[in-house]
Amino acid sequence: MSKPFTFELIKTCKQSGARLGVLHTPHGDIPTPIYMPVGTQACVKAMTTREMEEIGTKILLSNTYHLHLRPGEDLIARAGGLHKFMGWDHPILTDSGGFQVFSLAGLRKITEDGVSFRSHLDGSSRYLSPERSMQVQEALGSDIAMAFDICSAYPTDHAAAEKAMRTTHRWAERCKKAHTREDQALFGIVQGAFYKDLRIESAKTLADMDLPGYGIGGLSVGEPKPIMYDMLEAIEPYMPKNKPRYLMGVGTPDCFLEGVIRGVDMFDCVLATRIARNGTVFTGSGRLVIRNQTSAEEFFPIEEDCDCYACRTATRAYIRHLLKAGEITGARLCSIHNLRFLLHMMEEIRQAIMEDRLLDYRREFYERYDLTRNF
Amino acid sequence: MSKPFTFELIKTCKQSGARLGVLHTPHGDIPTPIYMPVGTQACVKAMTTREMEEIGTKILLSNTYHLHLRPGEDLIARAGGLHKFMGWDHPILTDSGGFQVFSLAGLRKITEDGVSFRSHLDGSSRYLSPERSMQVQEALGSDIAMAFDICSAYPTDHAAAEKAMRTTHRWAERCKKAHTREDQALFGIVQGAFYKDLRIESAKTLADMDLPGYGIGGLSVGEPKPIMYDMLEAIEPYMPKNKPRYLMGVGTPDCFLEGVIRGVDMFDCVLATRIARNGTVFTGSGRLVIRNQTSAEEFFPIEEDCDCYACRTATRAYIRHLLKAGEITGARLCSIHNLRFLLHMMEEIRQAIMEDRLLDYRREFYERYDLTRNF
Repeated sequence: MSKPFTFELIKTCKQSGARLGVLHTPHGDIPTPIYMPVGTQACVKAMTTREMEEIGTKILLSNTYHLHLRPGEDLIARAGGLHKFMGWDHPILTDSGGFQVFSLAGLRKITEDGVSFRSHLDGSSRYLSPERSMQVQEALGSDIAMAFDICSAYPTDHAAAEKAMRTTHRWAERCKKAHTREDQALFGIVQGAFYKDLRIESAKTLADMDLPGYGIGGLSVGEPKPIMYDMLEAIEPYMPKNKPRYLMGVGTPDCFLEGVIRGVDMFDCVLATRIARNGTVFTGSGRLVIRNQTSAEEFFPIEEDCDCYACRTATRAYIRHLLKAGEITGARLCSIHNLRFLLHMMEEIRQAIMEDRLLDYRREFYERYDLTRNF
Repeated sequence: MSKPFTFELIKTCKQSGARLGVLHTPHGDIPTPIYMPVGTQACVKAMTTREMEEIGTKILLSNTYHLHLRPGEDLIARAGGLHKFMGWDHPILTDSGGFQVFSLAGLRKITEDGVSFRSHLDGSSRYLSPERSMQVQEALGSDIAMAFDICSAYPTDHAAAEKAMRTTHRWAERCKKAHTREDQALFGIVQGAFYKDLRIESAKTLADMDLPGYGIGGLSVGEPKPIMYDMLEAIEPYMPKNKPRYLMGVGTPDCFLEGVIRGVDMFDCVLATRIARNGTVFTGSGRLVIRNQTSAEEFFPIEEDCDCYACRTATRAYIRHLLKAGEITGARLCSIHNLRFLLHMMEEIRQAIMEDRLLDYRREFYERYDLTRNF
């Protein structure tokens, strides 16, 4: 079998308690904290795998729900697995389909056994359960599989949140039992909505299952950021120190910092590529809507000191022209920049942890970053 | 001033009379025969300039009509010219806007002085004339500018074709008079619709003007290919031997061959990138609609022996999945392949001319190329 999945905690920042680590996977090592770009349909939108390598991507996320519907996990298995299918010979994490199914409000029915839902593509009846999710993720062959869980909306009352959490725990047990691939790590997912008691119970229950890593799910679903940070602080003491912690679906520069400082090791989010296609880019001083008239004659790059292909070769004026003209290449250049921006920020965060100055880094970050131009 | 624009005729193929040459321009040398990919709006659709270099592009075409409307030649001039604006430090040819204006049937009015038309973007009233076209193209700063001409539809009666041709000749004189940039070559355009007598008269009249090169316009506008080939054969003896000949808007593999054999040196066409975005690709055996079900489980490249990025890294099954899923990357991979296919074919054609075996090459081409899967 391939080499085992292990997490090596290198150090914690003396200023902040943020963690520096390395995740060893069958397809390579991942430095943490890490940002995982999202390739929903076996492709990071508008990008090639070569470009993903060039901007320093260490691990990609892909979506079980979408791949199950199209092209189907059987076809991908016949292609030799997801890595081979999409031409990405580095680590991949797949989500469980739980969150996507949760997002299909009105089109799904949850029972103790699993979730019936209708495909958003053709309306066909579909079914996912802990066992089916494991089956699909094993067919895909990702390095990290996520447990099939139930996500609660914001707000949710305590009783409903508790019920969803307990089902999530039983489903995590079923996932663990159903999961067989030794070259794939199964992560549990902490739920409990916005109640500290539930979050803590969830963290403890899952820690007892001794899984190789843990997602923190059900956050960034509409709640104010301080509530999310409260939840992270509440569970931190109960999360195993020697396991990676993955804050699911979170990907703004400020949340990276606040999450890392609260002990998070992994992040993913589609924000970078989604806003790129609408002509909005990250900069060190905040959001820039490069599509706007103000960039029409800016004959300089998005960021002078950025090392991405877009900033090395194109001006804001040119990128704006491409976006206004409906050229795919405009979306491409913004996508490259936004992904590189987040990956580079994470490189800086790792460096700051290494040098025990993450709080200094945060202070400097907020000095130049305009939060009114945040996301 | 920059080094002068010259055309060096290296040799003619002993088998066919096809020409091998080099076009020297201020932004570099271009081997001929050559295919010029089209970057209508200062960008080859879905491609970056780096990718254009990687697939062996020697010269790009861009469109005066589109750039005049958006972002405007003044903005591009302030950016430092079209090369700098789009990040392409190699030769560029701009068309005159004549053909685009011709395509706006119903939205334009032609007089002896020029053409009034409405912008397809916002309906605003616009005007182009020989002098205005020169002004715009000089502001863009392309290496080769085209004369402002009138294109006749297929079919057109002799009297109307003759009238349009004579206006085109008068406009060519006006373009020559208005044109001032010494680092930009002005090409005339042979017209005359589908009448050999007019085509010959046009070729002679323009040859007398001693311009540095000549376009052959008004072909591939709906007529059967044999008619186009007849016109090329009719004018060939009257086209100056020491000037490049550019068959405008023609870009299928078979037309490359038939055109080169009839003495053509340059081609351009949007077909390669347009069909790519719809999931259709060129192969040595003819058109492949990779979007079709038949490619769903073809776990091998579009063409095994193609050196393009798409063929080196992606299977037909993966590309089909991307296209079906609406992923931009699918259009990108097909675009890269199609452009590389045509550029590579032109490399083979040049090699065959060098080795005096272009008719052998043509025979071999038609043996493997299924014309029922042509364009």
